[in-house]
Amino acid sequence: MLFVELIRKKRDGKELSRQEIEWIVSAYTRGEVPDYQVSAFLMAALLRGLNHDETAALTNAMLRSGSVLDFSEIPGLKVDKHSTGGVGDKTSLILAPIVAAGGVSVPMVSGRGLGHTGGTLDKLEAIPGFNVHLDLVEFRRILAKVGCAMIGQTAELAPADKKLYSLRDVTGTVESPSLICASIMSKKLAEGIDGLVLDVKTGSGAFMKNIEDSEFLARLMVETGEHMGKKMVALITDMDQPLGRYIGNALEVVECVEVLRGNFAGSEDLVELTLELCGWMFLLGGRTATKDQGRALALELIKNGQALERFRLLVREQGGEVAAIDNLALLPQAAYREDVLAPASGFIGSIECERIGVAGVMLGGGRFTKEEAVDPAVGIVLHKKVGDPVSEGEALCTVHYNSPERYAEALPVLLAAYSIGEQQPLSRLLVHKVIQGQSV
Amino acid sequence: MLFVELIRKKRDGKELSRQEIEWIVSAYTRGEVPDYQVSAFLMAALLRGLNHDETAALTNAMLRSGSVLDFSEIPGLKVDKHSTGGVGDKTSLILAPIVAAGGVSVPMVSGRGLGHTGGTLDKLEAIPGFNVHLDLVEFRRILAKVGCAMIGQTAELAPADKKLYSLRDVTGTVESPSLICASIMSKKLAEGIDGLVLDVKTGSGAFMKNIEDSEFLARLMVETGEHMGKKMVALITDMDQPLGRYIGNALEVVECVEVLRGNFAGSEDLVELTLELCGWMFLLGGRTATKDQGRALALELIKNGQALERFRLLVREQGGEVAAIDNLALLPQAAYREDVLAPASGFIGSIECERIGVAGVMLGGGRFTKEEAVDPAVGIVLHKKVGDPVSEGEALCTVHYNSPERYAEALPVLLAAYSIGEQQPLSRLLVHKVIQGQSV
Repeated sequence: MLFVELIRKKRDGKELSRQEIEWIVSAYTRGEVPDYQVSAFLMAALLRGLNHDETAALTNAMLRSGSVLDFSEIPGLKVDKHSTGGVGDKTSLILAPIVAAGGVSVPMVSGRGLGHTGGTLDKLEAIPGFNVHLDLVEFRRILAKVGCAMIGQTAELAPADKKLYSLRDVTGTVESPSLICASIMSKKLAEGIDGLVLDVKTGSGAFMKNIEDSEFLARLMVETGEHMGKKMVALITDMDQPLGRYIGNALEVVECVEVLRGNFAGSEDLVELTLELCGWMFLLGGRTATKDQGRALALELIKNGQALERFRLLVREQGGEVAAIDNLALLPQAAYREDVLAPASGFIGSIECERIGVAGVMLGGGRFTKEEAVDPAVGIVLHKKVGDPVSEGEALCTVHYNSPERYAEALPVLLAAYSIGEQQPLSRLLVHKVIQGQSV
Repeated sequence: MLFVELIRKKRDGKELSRQEIEWIVSAYTRGEVPDYQVSAFLMAALLRGLNHDETAALTNAMLRSGSVLDFSEIPGLKVDKHSTGGVGDKTSLILAPIVAAGGVSVPMVSGRGLGHTGGTLDKLEAIPGFNVHLDLVEFRRILAKVGCAMIGQTAELAPADKKLYSLRDVTGTVESPSLICASIMSKKLAEGIDGLVLDVKTGSGAFMKNIEDSEFLARLMVETGEHMGKKMVALITDMDQPLGRYIGNALEVVECVEVLRGNFAGSEDLVELTLELCGWMFLLGGRTATKDQGRALALELIKNGQALERFRLLVREQGGEVAAIDNLALLPQAAYREDVLAPASGFIGSIECERIGVAGVMLGGGRFTKEEAVDPAVGIVLHKKVGDPVSEGEALCTVHYNSPERYAEALPVLLAAYSIGEQQPLSRLLVHKVIQGQSV
């Protein structure tokens, strides 16, 4: 096959066959076609679009570029959740032990934070000793024992995605729904799951700024997953302000443990979203007949302590210090804390996620480029959320930091994230829309 | 400047500034940005388009990537002609000596044949000894002495184009009017000319298959050239059948010399187009007040032998054997000749250029990839052109070949190029349209 002919075909808006797409992915993964042809192809695909069949073929080819896990020896269905990324989005750490405690296995392969959005692996690593670099044998053992396991992407799973994503990142070809869908779904389907709940963020802090774009991507992923025989549901959820109260790796672990302990105060939006996601995961996992039954089960598993117990077991099995879960003061602590005070009285009109996230990165808690190390201790604790009344001089948030220089840099970004007005803003829905696959 | 941001900008259909385009060309020429980013940019530029300002900026940046010749010490204006490429298109070899004999200098930098279209350099090299690899000092000396000189692209002239063209060729980014315009115009304007006549081919054998596309490209090039202070005219000319009677490098030299000798029989279309192009070149070169006066002058320079004399001088100065011009039997001769007979009686309905050109390449007279050597002796002599009546068993053409195996391969392709019907087809215009720059 002459690659340039395939590039021209897509450039001219024609449909590529399954065989042609498989050839591209396989030749690129094996290093048989150069980056410069692939990037031209990706740009053509982004601008001309890939239809549903092409997207499914691309997803499948990327999935088949590596190992696909098979957990059929573990009884019951396996489900996972994937979020398109946000600020303060820590639901994975709460829902995995809840769903595992409810009897549905959760084999979760996660990513790291990049730019203003955080990553599950960085959060887990804030727990001293927690090892996310398990091999697949260990992953399988822990999944069987705990009911959930949380690792980073390995070289075995969807290697084509790793290569393609690096290229897309530097060639302006990230923002294509089809390419995003193939990237997410190829990795997630490699986990050997039966069902997947997608949390597609929308709003100013999300990758997709409006509901239409989010819904388009959500439908594409649901259809692609169904096409491969998976039970799928996607929630379009709000990311117009950070989720929960805590932003920062160790701080987010604190909030997760507090929620698992049943202390929901100040974390209502986080709890609400987590329970919804758990509800759908239980439904997809065949554990309950409805989402609401699943939601009730999740709440019960928090209240009776089983979810927290499952989290402690997970931490122990993955090498983490359980003592730091039992006594949160043993988690990494920043040297300094400083309250950021409201410059005026009124109502919180907005808290821009992107600025909050960037401030967190500036403090050292995240990374702008893949190579940077993160400081697990730093972060931001929000005392006010959108719609809350505030008086001048009252604390908007508390910054946890280790470097006064970094704090000085981050403070103006943080302050600029807030708008305070005289009118209380209309409250936004947390879950804007649910897109269910036909088999759900 | 972050290249990925410029790629995204063009991808999203926004206009790039002159500075941004200059940065891209300059960074790429210096090897500071990788091919994979440039190819993504080229695909975005092809699909989103570049406007006139962007096209002019790109042309200028590519032009300035290398030397721009200055022939101001040679009296009078310098003009050149560029054709977008066709089959049997040998006008350059005829018009350069005519225009030089008329007192207007023609510094011509040409290319080689690729695919079904021939190249001026390959044709010139069919003359034993003819050297197209002159350095710029020698180019200048011959131009001053002969009034014309014909060489291949050197490393000094528009090096950005060489690099970009190689990348476009393998990434499906050739077919963009703006990129084509910048490629052609940057090379031609580097010649240090005052005026340029463009021969934009249209029809089944041309790169642009319909008049609208050809005209769009022609207007873009005319405007880009004018923007840089050049006198510009573009002719949209027909390439629905091969031009003239001879196809093949030495054979085309034969036809050119015959025309310069005043033997026009069978070459009427070639003569007509050449005279039109000369007419415009004399007008742009300030030699005549109208195109028609220039055309008449060209005819006179053929009739009085001065054009042929000028061609002999050019051949001598560039190292070629003048004896082979005076006695065409000294040009490379193929070992075998075979007539291809008409399978039916009727009128020639069409002669597909692309098939004729490909058959010529299959005989060894051209190249599918840049590295191949060409056989100067082989080719095809047409005895019938579109509209001619033909009887079954009459010779359609004569094939000159050196390898019976290659002949056997090429024959079916050649035969498939012809269609013979009962109706005489409507004759097509040779010059469909003329697009004059405002300063002409």
